[in-house]
Amino acid sequence: MALTRREFISGTAAGAAGLVVGGVVGNIIGGGGDGETVGGGAVTGVSSDITAIAEARGLEPGDIAKAVKTFVPGGRPELDEFYVFSSGGHSGQLMVMGVPSMRILKIIGVFTPESWQGWGYGSESDAVIKAGTTSEGGPVSPSRPTLTWADTHHPALSETDGEYDGRWVYIQDRANGRIAMIDLRDFKTKQIYDVPNLVSSHGGCFVTPNSEYVHISTKTPTLRDGVDPASALENFADSFRGYSTFLAINPQTGRFDIERSFQVELPPYTQDLADAGKLLSFGWVFIGSYNTEMAYGGNLEGNPPIEVGASKADFDYLHMVNWKKAEQVVGTRSVMLNGMRVIPLDVAIEEGILYLAPEPRSPHGADVSPNGRYIVVGGKLDPHVTIYDIEMIEKAIAAQDFEAHDQYGIPILRFDSVVSGRVEVGAGPLHTQFDDKGYGYTSLFLESAVAKYSLGAPDFTAEESYKLVDKVPVHYNIGHLVAMEGDTVKPAGKYVIALNKWSIDRYAGIGTLNPQNFQLVDLTGEKMEVLSDTPIGMAEPHYVQAIRADRIKSWDVYPPGTDQLTMQPSPHAIADGGERIEQNGTTTEVYMSVKRSNFKPDIIRVKKGDRLVLHLTNVEVTPDATHGFAVPRYNISMSIDPGEYARIEFVADVEGAFAMYCTEFCSALHLEMQGWIIVSA
Amino acid sequence: MALTRREFISGTAAGAAGLVVGGVVGNIIGGGGDGETVGGGAVTGVSSDITAIAEARGLEPGDIAKAVKTFVPGGRPELDEFYVFSSGGHSGQLMVMGVPSMRILKIIGVFTPESWQGWGYGSESDAVIKAGTTSEGGPVSPSRPTLTWADTHHPALSETDGEYDGRWVYIQDRANGRIAMIDLRDFKTKQIYDVPNLVSSHGGCFVTPNSEYVHISTKTPTLRDGVDPASALENFADSFRGYSTFLAINPQTGRFDIERSFQVELPPYTQDLADAGKLLSFGWVFIGSYNTEMAYGGNLEGNPPIEVGASKADFDYLHMVNWKKAEQVVGTRSVMLNGMRVIPLDVAIEEGILYLAPEPRSPHGADVSPNGRYIVVGGKLDPHVTIYDIEMIEKAIAAQDFEAHDQYGIPILRFDSVVSGRVEVGAGPLHTQFDDKGYGYTSLFLESAVAKYSLGAPDFTAEESYKLVDKVPVHYNIGHLVAMEGDTVKPAGKYVIALNKWSIDRYAGIGTLNPQNFQLVDLTGEKMEVLSDTPIGMAEPHYVQAIRADRIKSWDVYPPGTDQLTMQPSPHAIADGGERIEQNGTTTEVYMSVKRSNFKPDIIRVKKGDRLVLHLTNVEVTPDATHGFAVPRYNISMSIDPGEYARIEFVADVEGAFAMYCTEFCSALHLEMQGWIIVSA
Repeated sequence: MALTRREFISGTAAGAAGLVVGGVVGNIIGGGGDGETVGGGAVTGVSSDITAIAEARGLEPGDIAKAVKTFVPGGRPELDEFYVFSSGGHSGQLMVMGVPSMRILKIIGVFTPESWQGWGYGSESDAVIKAGTTSEGGPVSPSRPTLTWADTHHPALSETDGEYDGRWVYIQDRANGRIAMIDLRDFKTKQIYDVPNLVSSHGGCFVTPNSEYVHISTKTPTLRDGVDPASALENFADSFRGYSTFLAINPQTGRFDIERSFQVELPPYTQDLADAGKLLSFGWVFIGSYNTEMAYGGNLEGNPPIEVGASKADFDYLHMVNWKKAEQVVGTRSVMLNGMRVIPLDVAIEEGILYLAPEPRSPHGADVSPNGRYIVVGGKLDPHVTIYDIEMIEKAIAAQDFEAHDQYGIPILRFDSVVSGRVEVGAGPLHTQFDDKGYGYTSLFLESAVAKYSLGAPDFTAEESYKLVDKVPVHYNIGHLVAMEGDTVKPAGKYVIALNKWSIDRYAGIGTLNPQNFQLVDLTGEKMEVLSDTPIGMAEPHYVQAIRADRIKSWDVYPPGTDQLTMQPSPHAIADGGERIEQNGTTTEVYMSVKRSNFKPDIIRVKKGDRLVLHLTNVEVTPDATHGFAVPRYNISMSIDPGEYARIEFVADVEGAFAMYCTEFCSALHLEMQGWIIVSA
Repeated sequence: MALTRREFISGTAAGAAGLVVGGVVGNIIGGGGDGETVGGGAVTGVSSDITAIAEARGLEPGDIAKAVKTFVPGGRPELDEFYVFSSGGHSGQLMVMGVPSMRILKIIGVFTPESWQGWGYGSESDAVIKAGTTSEGGPVSPSRPTLTWADTHHPALSETDGEYDGRWVYIQDRANGRIAMIDLRDFKTKQIYDVPNLVSSHGGCFVTPNSEYVHISTKTPTLRDGVDPASALENFADSFRGYSTFLAINPQTGRFDIERSFQVELPPYTQDLADAGKLLSFGWVFIGSYNTEMAYGGNLEGNPPIEVGASKADFDYLHMVNWKKAEQVVGTRSVMLNGMRVIPLDVAIEEGILYLAPEPRSPHGADVSPNGRYIVVGGKLDPHVTIYDIEMIEKAIAAQDFEAHDQYGIPILRFDSVVSGRVEVGAGPLHTQFDDKGYGYTSLFLESAVAKYSLGAPDFTAEESYKLVDKVPVHYNIGHLVAMEGDTVKPAGKYVIALNKWSIDRYAGIGTLNPQNFQLVDLTGEKMEVLSDTPIGMAEPHYVQAIRADRIKSWDVYPPGTDQLTMQPSPHAIADGGERIEQNGTTTEVYMSVKRSNFKPDIIRVKKGDRLVLHLTNVEVTPDATHGFAVPRYNISMSIDPGEYARIEFVADVEGAFAMYCTEFCSALHLEMQGWIIVSA
């Protein structure tokens, strides 16, 4: 199946290249249409009762089976067999959904303040968001305001032995080169880290198979320190660099251990999606790239726009980074750059840490198969997926079988020496996931479809390898897709979710901004079948991961007095009866209990200008007995779960009588769960 | 059916009063259990194919009909017959959901910045949020920061002749006494108004039957100007006042017309939920209240908590405000208070604008029946709903049939003269909605159930009036409920949605903060039947309204160059070819076109410290061709829909090369839709 590089360029790529008309590829919307594949044969002989209900509602016969395949009745949470952790795109948050119901179980506040959860509205969580701009201490100057949103692209669940372990999840900020860590004991964000030397990010995040590291690399490359921005674009190759970042994970807490972390300097191509090697490829990460032309636009001055300049070359470069080797040399051969150990590009080359391999036209996804042998690349202007083989890669490296070096001296492996096969899947292949039977599933953006094909041995042994076996239209313009546990060493199969970017006619009458469209695809039948559409009208999800729900062992009640930031009991937490007010000069410290249906104390008196520190302990032990806390006019909103301790500090600088109250409808006398903050002259 | 006041106190109320044990009513969680009513008889004789699918998934036989009753297949948006506009509670937003699928179609950014929609992240929308703190110009002092969240409780769709007209929706901020207006042409917020004299709000918002006014009244009363906060609580009756606010609506734009607006001063009870009279009661509004005891707590000093102090009296007061009369006198008999015309309390009494009527123990909801005749009040510590009759009320007022006057001189109508019936519905009745067959539906918080009962004539004529006919358990602790168009003059019946506050065991393993639980209830069978559970894990909805989807005629593309704030073409919008950069001193103005797949110009060069004004026009005409716009490190996120003009202004105060990019995956070359902002010394 392997094509020579020459065959590829002259032959099959022509069709894809033909899609570029005057540089306006993007105007094509996949014409998936409505011709869904109906499978399973479950549409005949339905009882007249059920048929009558369906007919009265205007359903088609085939809809009954789809309904029954996706419905999760109330009170049966276990029937949502999988949970999806979905990036929120430029909402900055992380969504959790159940599969197959596709119900949104929670949206976790991460980079963007979220007042329902009291995230960033006066509580200690503010410090997490503040520290997330420049790491640790928060903004270093007024010209670097605290960043209060992100473009979250790729969530990464923690892994043990290459399987999700349900402990933590990470998510990166494409806009600003940051990363956040969420603890799945309470489903709350614990840390936001502004990664040095990354102005923006894309490649990652993902974790290595035992959560040794979480990886995040540059998107658009970073201006090097000391370079004059005024002439930077014209001297692009010298002015910018990329960075592949390995953030070490503390194995107890899941937080970033910066001292053990490091970066590998990369050329200033636009590094794109990435994945961690596993099993056969353990120790490697693979990063796609585009714009190795280093085009920078200038369309108002008559230069071609970036979309054209960046699409000139037939090949960009798959980056291969050997982090096990990097670990060995980082102690001795790195330099410190803005607080991060960096292995310079020349050292990375010399030590055999970094290699390139050609990847066809405008590559996007780079996904590693379950056993780690294959790396599947979708080139979005090429109708094939290109499948690299780690055994061929390692053999080629050992043999120094290079076709050239790039202008930075990085060895480029020969295409034919590392590619074990190519499958013609259709127009605009982007991302690939895997099932438990040796098949790969690739999203086709331009064609608005999901393609299914066989992998090579040992993933797939039953029939012919590298054979397209099925395709299903989706609606419309699919970006990522996810199969259940489909990027682990043990995929679960069953479903694929198509993350469609356009919905156009799938939802009606809700204004000028359309939702995204998630489609649940059944993999259990002979043919793939779209079961349901789910609008995503609050986010622009990119990658998602789907984990077996029973892997998550979250808390439903905090151990008494737990501070959500430290996940330890707070020394300032109280039990029932420990309520008090302490006056220290112009600071009033209030130790308050919170329970149905009162705050105690319920009257707080301070002088205007005094500092007020509230230590709130929710002394309840009943699951779901969450209370809110708001102070009118002070922009304070907190959510305090059962057992939780929370702290709030503010200057009482507005005179008046302010009725603090519980914002969470907690009991029949919830409305009476109120008190007064009296600020007098 | 009418009880005397004496009978009420001595008899049936005892059971409810018994629920108060040591002041800890709230610890009771309704024991609804899982014993759902199964109706419709649609569980037998299902085809073996479908049954096999159901059995394989572990579904019960009755689940098949529920699945078929709620499933909305992809590409059939019209099968979501109704749209629900749901408050977001302390998320500060407004949610739109489809019925019966219960899919969340959109979350509209209102009071809280929302970066997916670019709401409050650098665009002109910032001005809407800023102006929403003190009306018009934004914060007047550093001690009044811009409020960046709200506790949204009650959405109010605009009406014509008492029916929803699908033009606008309003929603109020319980925390801060504010109100927002959303245009349903583009589903975006146009105005946030900080209502004078309201520190917080609850009663409302709702619109009068021809959208003459939108009403919003105080929750906890407002400290009067000039009163010393230090002694305010001890002199509660003199220190505080409530305000019933009638914001006039501009009939063309839907925006608030402050000059034609007014308030009616109210006593400092805690005014609660409210509703507008219609048809027979047109011209009135009705506001429930509690804490007419004016308890203010002090539990750390040994006083009873507010929950006890506010629950002492057997009756609080239903407020009746005659806004048609108020309109007649506001021109001559109002005073100007903080920019709002206010009819003082004594004038309101003298002019017959304000009356009270006793309402039993801890009243909450006050809901007007479709023909306007009945006002149904739920007293949450009384197992009955109490039904007032506007004909009796008007007769009693004409006869001056008062039992007393309150301490402010407001006439109190005799309970027996205005109450036409009471129905024993169960423990903890809160809110009531109506169907098209003359039934009322009341939520029972303590019992975790929905009660159905017949109303009096002319709403209901078929059988016995005021008779409980059905009850269905819900899960758990229902607050509001909504029937389809169930607060209009022409309810649509079909479904009720139970908005349950607790979910406890309905969802598993998603951390310490539980979602709320919406349950869709089928009204078409002999018995009510719960069809589905939907988690709400991003908001705490209070009231919602449900409108027939076909009443909404929204835009899918803006007229070219529309400014979303004015809904008019912007003079700064451009067409393709109009791109340019203008330098005016230290201000750089960029007129940029935005389309698949480039920004033009794609390079912007400014000096550090210069002001950059970007005029972005999305020149696309294809529905769903939305583009995003982000600038790394500058905390800027915008969403620009097809046809939309957007403006952004900032000081380029950080030196560097910043890759502005499109955040909305718009085309196969979306990743190349990028450009450079070069900020040099």
